[in-house]
Amino acid sequence: MDERKILLVIFDGLGDRPLTELGHKTPLESTPKPNLDWFAANGINGLVDPIAPGVVAGSDTSHLALFGYDPREVYTGRGPFEAAGVGIDLQPGDIAFRGNFASVDEDLRITDRRAGRIREGTEELAKALDGLRLGRIRVTVRAGTEHRVALVLRGRGLSPKVSDTDPHEIGAKVLDAKPLETAAKPTAKAVNAFTKQAYKVLKSHPVNRARVAKGEPPANISVLRGAGIYPDLMPITERLHLTAAGIAGVALIRGMFRTVGIDPIEVPGATGGLDTNMIAKADAALEALTTYDLVVLHVKATDLCGHDGKASEKIRVIERMDAMMGHLKSKLPSDVIVAITADHSTPVAVKDHSGDPVPLTIFGEGVRVDDVLNFDERSVAHGALGRIRGQDVMSLLLDISNRATKYGA
Amino acid sequence: MDERKILLVIFDGLGDRPLTELGHKTPLESTPKPNLDWFAANGINGLVDPIAPGVVAGSDTSHLALFGYDPREVYTGRGPFEAAGVGIDLQPGDIAFRGNFASVDEDLRITDRRAGRIREGTEELAKALDGLRLGRIRVTVRAGTEHRVALVLRGRGLSPKVSDTDPHEIGAKVLDAKPLETAAKPTAKAVNAFTKQAYKVLKSHPVNRARVAKGEPPANISVLRGAGIYPDLMPITERLHLTAAGIAGVALIRGMFRTVGIDPIEVPGATGGLDTNMIAKADAALEALTTYDLVVLHVKATDLCGHDGKASEKIRVIERMDAMMGHLKSKLPSDVIVAITADHSTPVAVKDHSGDPVPLTIFGEGVRVDDVLNFDERSVAHGALGRIRGQDVMSLLLDISNRATKYGA
Repeated sequence: MDERKILLVIFDGLGDRPLTELGHKTPLESTPKPNLDWFAANGINGLVDPIAPGVVAGSDTSHLALFGYDPREVYTGRGPFEAAGVGIDLQPGDIAFRGNFASVDEDLRITDRRAGRIREGTEELAKALDGLRLGRIRVTVRAGTEHRVALVLRGRGLSPKVSDTDPHEIGAKVLDAKPLETAAKPTAKAVNAFTKQAYKVLKSHPVNRARVAKGEPPANISVLRGAGIYPDLMPITERLHLTAAGIAGVALIRGMFRTVGIDPIEVPGATGGLDTNMIAKADAALEALTTYDLVVLHVKATDLCGHDGKASEKIRVIERMDAMMGHLKSKLPSDVIVAITADHSTPVAVKDHSGDPVPLTIFGEGVRVDDVLNFDERSVAHGALGRIRGQDVMSLLLDISNRATKYGA
Repeated sequence: MDERKILLVIFDGLGDRPLTELGHKTPLESTPKPNLDWFAANGINGLVDPIAPGVVAGSDTSHLALFGYDPREVYTGRGPFEAAGVGIDLQPGDIAFRGNFASVDEDLRITDRRAGRIREGTEELAKALDGLRLGRIRVTVRAGTEHRVALVLRGRGLSPKVSDTDPHEIGAKVLDAKPLETAAKPTAKAVNAFTKQAYKVLKSHPVNRARVAKGEPPANISVLRGAGIYPDLMPITERLHLTAAGIAGVALIRGMFRTVGIDPIEVPGATGGLDTNMIAKADAALEALTTYDLVVLHVKATDLCGHDGKASEKIRVIERMDAMMGHLKSKLPSDVIVAITADHSTPVAVKDHSGDPVPLTIFGEGVRVDDVLNFDERSVAHGALGRIRGQDVMSLLLDISNRATKYGA
């Protein structure tokens, strides 16, 4: 049987809960979305628990699961994926953190956790810290968007079991990293040495002198969180015997791509924000499908509206997503299996991730089309896929695309 | 509460995908099957993933799961079950292979992988190899149907981690078995010694001289594949505290029966082919239910039609299966729980196993009868059993037959 191609569309934080202000409907249930419904009506549908029923997934753990990995085996913290997302080349065993440039007073008390949401000069600041050596440990620092920063420690015998230095609070002192296991003592020591060194280097940096002169808060410290060890993963290309590309505006997801061996594709206008150019992303996905077996198309905007608690904005984003799906539908080659799902729910009423399952539609030749007519949380619950787990999704896609290998004989 | 008897009917490879040529229906959906539907309408229904969603199961791994074992713990290869199926008495630790009598030239290049589908004389050929000693390893060889053969190595410290000697290709040389782990070196050495010895013994065997004289390809080698270690399983009779019998035409399934402690019952006319006498098998099952607690009734024919890619033949087989179920229904004692399912899907369009889930109906006193009216892939998806795994089936049957033991107190 011919192998088919796979397009996996992931709408970040799409799942929601019914809202009183929407007449007890979810955002997905509150607006016409003819194209998403078309895929649901012509596909097989169900609900996905990213990790397990009721478990609130992060974007990192859920994407690992959707890519077929067991996060309980390979995930220690978000740092490595953020670091990979800003372009640092990590090696298995590296310890990585995500962090902020922040403002502190002379006692290292936080005066602004985001250094006034600094936008310019962060690359110079990162460069001033990049390449530091703390004993035998080499430090890599790279600036992310706005005030964000990624830090990687490379050396022997490092551990991700260290606490954050970010106190997450104005007026609090930058925290000492504490070892959460005995073997993590050298790592915690290195992190604390980095904190001191960063303050020393940054406080007198020309970028900060200029900021202070303009009355802006200086980015004179880097506070860290989300320590994780870069996992030694077998690339998805080897595990699943296919070629894979991914499209995502946000650095974290690009970092997930790089970590699991999915080639990230740059798309002009793919910002990871509300202003992202979804049609450009769809066109890039169609183009990638001409050369790759698996293409992942990630859209962040729904998650942002959930975190912001804005139902009407989430509905507007869903309408644009639907237009994107219509564009994809009109140009879709017949040998492509399309899966549409989310990495987790980000309900407007919660303003954060929740453990509610997310819709999944699989469309393409050979699927057992069911009676579901609409792509929303409640309609797909009646679908023939039933309720499955995030890690099952890739298995289902390999099966229906005739790419699975037999277990047994 | 009185314990009930259990009849587990397994239609091999029954599950399918919708076919354009059948108006986007599956074979099960394409023909009247009043008796199967009667069981569905009067039973509780659902979908079974033999191993896990999307995982393509072999007949061996899926039967282990349906019998309540975890294949990931006990399965290493198909060889031991084939060997048990042709009547070899295996012991835990034995390494077994399935194989073919094949034809090779003087360079051991394959000229016919099945020695002209040899039918006669294979028992004499097997006997000529049976009992060989390779150092401290004792070899058992038994002929299967047509060109098929089973080989068992018995000795200390053997490993199933050796590669096939069957090159699966005309014109290729018989392969050297390679150790896939260091501990497998002695096993690989023994297998390679067997290959040489087999050629030496077989090339001048009277059966082959006669074949060559008649212009037929000689069965002058035995090529091996599917190495596995005979597992040390607690018999199902002990695990589940019941007596068990099984009816199957094909050797593999009879081997599975023997391995897990299910008594195989010989039924004249049960061939494992399209010509199998299903009514005779049903009568034998009813007879067995008078003395056994659990009776497994396996029918192979649906799988054969799937592998051959013949939709109309699969439909004809389903009609005969339905007649068999009608026969069973008319004679069924009231204290029997009936389960009807499959070991995996073998879609006509795929011509091989797929990871699509299979229907399950459980009928009998006490089951929570649901709204499902038809026994097919899509109808049962709405059933009250939901989507479960192969290993859950035996637990459900023990429960509804009032044979389960309490977990906890």
